[in-house]
Amino acid sequence: MRLSREDVLSFEKRYRATFFNSLSGFRSLHLCGTQNEDGIANLSVINSVFHVGSSPPFLGMMLRPEGAHQHTLTNIRKTGWFTLNQMPTKFAAQVHQAAARYPEDHNEFEEVGLTGCYDDHCPAPFVAESPVRYSLKLEEEISIKANGTFIIIGSVQHIELADEELITSDGYVDLGAADLLAVNGLDAYHHTELIARYRYPKPDLPPRKIHQD
Amino acid sequence: MRLSREDVLSFEKRYRATFFNSLSGFRSLHLCGTQNEDGIANLSVINSVFHVGSSPPFLGMMLRPEGAHQHTLTNIRKTGWFTLNQMPTKFAAQVHQAAARYPEDHNEFEEVGLTGCYDDHCPAPFVAESPVRYSLKLEEEISIKANGTFIIIGSVQHIELADEELITSDGYVDLGAADLLAVNGLDAYHHTELIARYRYPKPDLPPRKIHQD
Repeated sequence: MRLSREDVLSFEKRYRATFFNSLSGFRSLHLCGTQNEDGIANLSVINSVFHVGSSPPFLGMMLRPEGAHQHTLTNIRKTGWFTLNQMPTKFAAQVHQAAARYPEDHNEFEEVGLTGCYDDHCPAPFVAESPVRYSLKLEEEISIKANGTFIIIGSVQHIELADEELITSDGYVDLGAADLLAVNGLDAYHHTELIARYRYPKPDLPPRKIHQD
Repeated sequence: MRLSREDVLSFEKRYRATFFNSLSGFRSLHLCGTQNEDGIANLSVINSVFHVGSSPPFLGMMLRPEGAHQHTLTNIRKTGWFTLNQMPTKFAAQVHQAAARYPEDHNEFEEVGLTGCYDDHCPAPFVAESPVRYSLKLEEEISIKANGTFIIIGSVQHIELADEELITSDGYVDLGAADLLAVNGLDAYHHTELIARYRYPKPDLPPRKIHQD
């Protein structure tokens, strides 16, 4: 089946959004915690986090200026801080509910049945139920000319892992062992299973599996 | 377990790269096809594709100026075109091998055992074994000041799906049905299983599952 640009531009609007959000592959699921100047906590669902660098550690994510990300973007600009919290599969329903558009004066943790928690170093709340979470400081805000959205680059500050055994001997963080969610599009929550890890690829050698400890 | 920024900055370099690449969640796996001015095809592994917008359709991805992405970045700048090809789990070994640094005059499709194919509208090659693939035109190149990497924003042009039944009645593209790869970090290839889809969330309603057709 072959679809041209004209074909997809003629799709009905909601059908097209569902189509393009799900077309481009499995993604991580993060709950982004922020706090406004009145101390009210905000939670939003982010499925666009990407790795920018390790040395020093940076992550990027995409935010829309209106809709579900509006409070998140405002809070990050004002406070300079946010947290990213990955969630286990058993919380899929609560995670999805966090994407609903609650009024700004509602504490979204309470609304969706999750627990906010704080660490002294950071004004943004973490999600207590998240076994893999990190705080970030706003490093760079980039405007995408093509459609008026924004990319936020954050520098990773602190990392909290529920279990240090999630890190294997070579530094790999085994997200599958924590049964963390992967998502396809805006609404399809998936469990994952490891097929194999492979060693650093070399042009003159065949693929070599890593036998995990 | 709590790791401060100082803790992770003191990690050994390769350990730190493995740690941060795998920390931030499951990602899609795309093979990016480009062609240089001499007609030599290049393949690279991209695990940073993110959704930018549906209307019109844009995708973003991160590229490093040196290393495995160097030829990809050069070719996109010169020709303005690239393809993104998702791959089924059974091709995990070939996909991983495509990340090896072959010399520029080698055809990487042949080196890794995959097949390049062309469509008249686009000078960049597709991967014939990919059941979900799309061509993109370079729309915007963004330099990330924080670490000298680049974000490429592409406008989606043509989409090729091996089976139109991958699209459900509401426009959802069921990547799990095509057994497409999800990846954790640079080397851990995963299979996925759907837990549930949920309807558009509303503040005044509990989460409601979608019963797929």
